[in-house]
Amino acid sequence: MGKTIIGVMGQGGGAREEDVRAAFELGTLIAQEGWVLLTGGRAAGVMDAASRGAKSAGGLTVGILPGETAAGASEALDIPIVTALGEARNNVNVLTSRVVVACGAAGAGTASEIALALKARKPVILLGATDEARAFFASLGGERVSFAGTPREAVEIVKRLVDGEASR
Amino acid sequence: MGKTIIGVMGQGGGAREEDVRAAFELGTLIAQEGWVLLTGGRAAGVMDAASRGAKSAGGLTVGILPGETAAGASEALDIPIVTALGEARNNVNVLTSRVVVACGAAGAGTASEIALALKARKPVILLGATDEARAFFASLGGERVSFAGTPREAVEIVKRLVDGEASR
Amino acid sequence: MGKTIIGVMGQGGGAREEDVRAAFELGTLIAQEGWVLLTGGRAAGVMDAASRGAKSAGGLTVGILPGETAAGASEALDIPIVTALGEARNNVNVLTSRVVVACGAAGAGTASEIALALKARKPVILLGATDEARAFFASLGGERVSFAGTPREAVEIVKRLVDGEASR
Amino acid sequence: MGKTIIGVMGQGGGAREEDVRAAFELGTLIAQEGWVLLTGGRAAGVMDAASRGAKSAGGLTVGILPGETAAGASEALDIPIVTALGEARNNVNVLTSRVVVACGAAGAGTASEIALALKARKPVILLGATDEARAFFASLGGERVSFAGTPREAVEIVKRLVDGEASR
Repeated sequence: MGKTIIGVMGQGGGAREEDVRAAFELGTLIAQEGWVLLTGGRAAGVMDAASRGAKSAGGLTVGILPGETAAGASEALDIPIVTALGEARNNVNVLTSRVVVACGAAGAGTASEIALALKARKPVILLGATDEARAFFASLGGERVSFAGTPREAVEIVKRLVDGEASR
Repeated sequence: MGKTIIGVMGQGGGAREEDVRAAFELGTLIAQEGWVLLTGGRAAGVMDAASRGAKSAGGLTVGILPGETAAGASEALDIPIVTALGEARNNVNVLTSRVVVACGAAGAGTASEIALALKARKPVILLGATDEARAFFASLGGERVSFAGTPREAVEIVKRLVDGEASR
Repeated sequence: MGKTIIGVMGQGGGAREEDVRAAFELGTLIAQEGWVLLTGGRAAGVMDAASRGAKSAGGLTVGILPGETAAGASEALDIPIVTALGEARNNVNVLTSRVVVACGAAGAGTASEIALALKARKPVILLGATDEARAFFASLGGERVSFAGTPREAVEIVKRLVDGEASR
Repeated sequence: MGKTIIGVMGQGGGAREEDVRAAFELGTLIAQEGWVLLTGGRAAGVMDAASRGAKSAGGLTVGILPGETAAGASEALDIPIVTALGEARNNVNVLTSRVVVACGAAGAGTASEIALALKARKPVILLGATDEARAFFASLGGERVSFAGTPREAVEIVKRLVDGEASR
């Protein structure tokens, strides 16, 4: 019932080049697994790169947009969900995702998504996080938080989480 | 940029049998046009029937769910969006839809969606509405409100609206 | 537990002069009863007039604002609640109000609030509604909908509803 | 225009005894300054204690509730705002507050509020935070984040922030 939706969260305008590259690869790998990619939907940074990666691999992309219209949405979205919720849409992002991958150095928006995901008891994978983020979210989320060094590693963890759930 | 998403709104538990039948046909026709179907996502009444209709024709279905989990979602959803917004998710339903079709006798939830769609300047089609609903929403929405007697008629109106927009 | 909060809904920019006058009187009378006034908070039309009326009588005013800041808020608000929810904040308006009074000819936003209030099983009073609105919402809400010709009449109905609840 | 609203965020059920004590004192001091206290509104932990503290000093208390009704609200609330937004209401908490004080060891909900506050460029004060939280939020928020060891110290920082703004 319902496709497997994997959320990729990360900075928009402030994203580092290496985080954008990782996001593109992550999107590609997620699509190759047959999963649906979910992001915050904007045409910027990690969100945009992950969506473009997924599209380049023939995947399906969903974006949960903060504004009242689809203006500013990534061109790589198949399903732009227009919420007009501002940052409150971050909670929709994480509730809709089976697993949340935070890609790169977290800004405040991404940090709120990691925290909201943990609040909702969702598994979270931090890919390329800073030391401070790793220490804090490990203290907050315990075994619900995993760490990955590369997009491929992140996807391997997602696979174990999704398969583990399916085999129960 | 983005697929064409058509929203079908209508009663859940209280839906009349004829409205459920119309919703199934509406979902089928929407999928046959290659559009994505969006509903309120629950496994009840018009939402469920429209989603099942769309799936029966090989379409893609999105449901904007009110609760904190996908419990109670229609089995015919491909993309269950979990909002935890309660009835505030009705605004997401209409903002995400290119055109909103209200199917059958409107309950309070559907009435709120018609009103929110008009507030957002979206075109609305009332299919099988009561006389009171027709009179009120015509007075409220002017030329943004159309009336249809059958699902096929509703889809013809959607087609004109979508094509008209595309040809501008 | 908690003060009695009465919601007054109505048009912003498009409000008729007579509706604005009624809203001011309604706000005044609500404050004189010792109730808290709740509105959609903007510095326009019915919302603003009701808030100014309540302040002129020494009352307490709450506004549920749609934007990301308090910009555009009525100067007569004591408690501006900043939601960044756009029109989804309409559901907060009605859920927070013990009774909802729709003042004047309803626009689309107000119509959504009446419908959302009925969905939440809140009592609604239509003051100075059009014939079409009266007929539609009576058909939708049954005995939960009352009609008033003057602000004083509306407040008498609120009083019966609030007292009736208290005496149960 | 509008009273000064100070938000106090912190754990509900999982709050430590010392955090609950600090919250009560914080609520008391906030009320003594003539500020309105805002919390997440539930009858638990830091939220409840801060509200009871503020009421004990004759203050005004606002609670932004996550559910569809006021069930489970702190008895010390004057203005229970019923949002039906679940954890998305956390964004309303911080947008409505002039300054956000996170009281005690942050759980996931509080962490999301700190992050959302920083996203909205609000000043945040961490009172009694863990070392991991201090390090992470300092790296995230820069000079927008302050640290306090006692409720009185937190209120002194709020005072400087509020006065500084007023004198501009």
